[in-house]
Amino acid sequence: MGMTPSLVVLGVTGLPEIGRGVSIGALIAQHASLVPGDVVVVTQKIVSKSEGRIVEVDASDPDAKRRLAESEAVRVLRRRGDLVVTETRHGFVCASSGVDLSNVEMGYAALLPVDPDRSARRIRDQLRAVAGVEVGVVVSDTFGRAWRRGLTDVAIGCAGVAAVVDLRGVEDAMGRELTVTEVCVADEIAAAADLIMGKSSGIPVAIVRGVDPTWLRESSVHEEIVRPYDEDLFR
Amino acid sequence: MGMTPSLVVLGVTGLPEIGRGVSIGALIAQHASLVPGDVVVVTQKIVSKSEGRIVEVDASDPDAKRRLAESEAVRVLRRRGDLVVTETRHGFVCASSGVDLSNVEMGYAALLPVDPDRSARRIRDQLRAVAGVEVGVVVSDTFGRAWRRGLTDVAIGCAGVAAVVDLRGVEDAMGRELTVTEVCVADEIAAAADLIMGKSSGIPVAIVRGVDPTWLRESSVHEEIVRPYDEDLFR
Repeated sequence: MGMTPSLVVLGVTGLPEIGRGVSIGALIAQHASLVPGDVVVVTQKIVSKSEGRIVEVDASDPDAKRRLAESEAVRVLRRRGDLVVTETRHGFVCASSGVDLSNVEMGYAALLPVDPDRSARRIRDQLRAVAGVEVGVVVSDTFGRAWRRGLTDVAIGCAGVAAVVDLRGVEDAMGRELTVTEVCVADEIAAAADLIMGKSSGIPVAIVRGVDPTWLRESSVHEEIVRPYDEDLFR
Repeated sequence: MGMTPSLVVLGVTGLPEIGRGVSIGALIAQHASLVPGDVVVVTQKIVSKSEGRIVEVDASDPDAKRRLAESEAVRVLRRRGDLVVTETRHGFVCASSGVDLSNVEMGYAALLPVDPDRSARRIRDQLRAVAGVEVGVVVSDTFGRAWRRGLTDVAIGCAGVAAVVDLRGVEDAMGRELTVTEVCVADEIAAAADLIMGKSSGIPVAIVRGVDPTWLRESSVHEEIVRPYDEDLFR
């Protein structure tokens, strides 16, 4: 049998409701047994809660979410019915600037973290300080895509694990140099984590254990993944 | 400790070079020990080889790949330098209609399978017949995206495992109905598998073990994921 046990995705359960100022890293360290090289995936919602990125909305006003989304955007790219697709200040293209009313108290909305790469670094540093373990951190959110139906989780911030891995110059299995090159491993890690998080199962943190150790390095979603407006063919 | 062992991704190693007419399901059954509910992810390249979707190209003609890509397209959406983004007959939007010269013999190119959902069903049926095990199958390929740099693996065909899971009506952890709804689990499964496949490591098959058993059902990438041209805001 040629099977290589390669990658494990573990859900971290039992975390309490997250309030402003909570150290997510310290909480994770209490609830999970990490090993060096793990990548800890944290959903945006609890990061936003810990950073106080929660704002009041008038739940009776059907237009409140749209106005909030537009206030968080640098560009409104498309509208159709209730859907508004925007470019956020971070450069993310997503529905409603990532403003989200689910899993938030009634009458409130969660905004994206101001700097999700910094959020990831902070959680990585907390885990280093509290648990004494060197891990990667990915902050994930659920975005739609062009061309394909359904949402997938992607990385909005990362620390200590590559966002994009450059395979330029690596030979393929036939010994020819590959031309296809840059793999967005941070998005693939976020997607893998979402397979056990679900949307409502109350698992806001997952551990991806077993990623290629060469991917563990300083990194940034903003620098590596966000495609600037003027380089994009589809905006 | 609140850790739930949840999902394992296993690489299938030692597969021989795949020729036309080979039963990929029978080969996988020889090299891997499957259990019911596993999802077997098979990269497009070996599916195309087994189905004879390999064509000669003039390696000395720098324009040969572009012409082949255009002959496989129903629409050319964007051009920039050597890059041509097309819509394939399947409705996929990707670079060069998925035509690929890597991991193929010099002087040849691999085209996408004619009907990747059918390819997935065939492999699923082979595994059922040879190994007596009921599994899901995802045929994956590596595509670029709008708005974000880097490539990720996505599903181009599937059988026996949902492409998109509808979470409409599922309550969130606060007891409110979720409005965000449709998760493209087949793309997330393909992404998870790619974390251990790499582009050149010679692992063309991976097993994702531990997916939600409610996802195991009849399915189709074409029906569930491909967004028709006239529903798309970004084409």
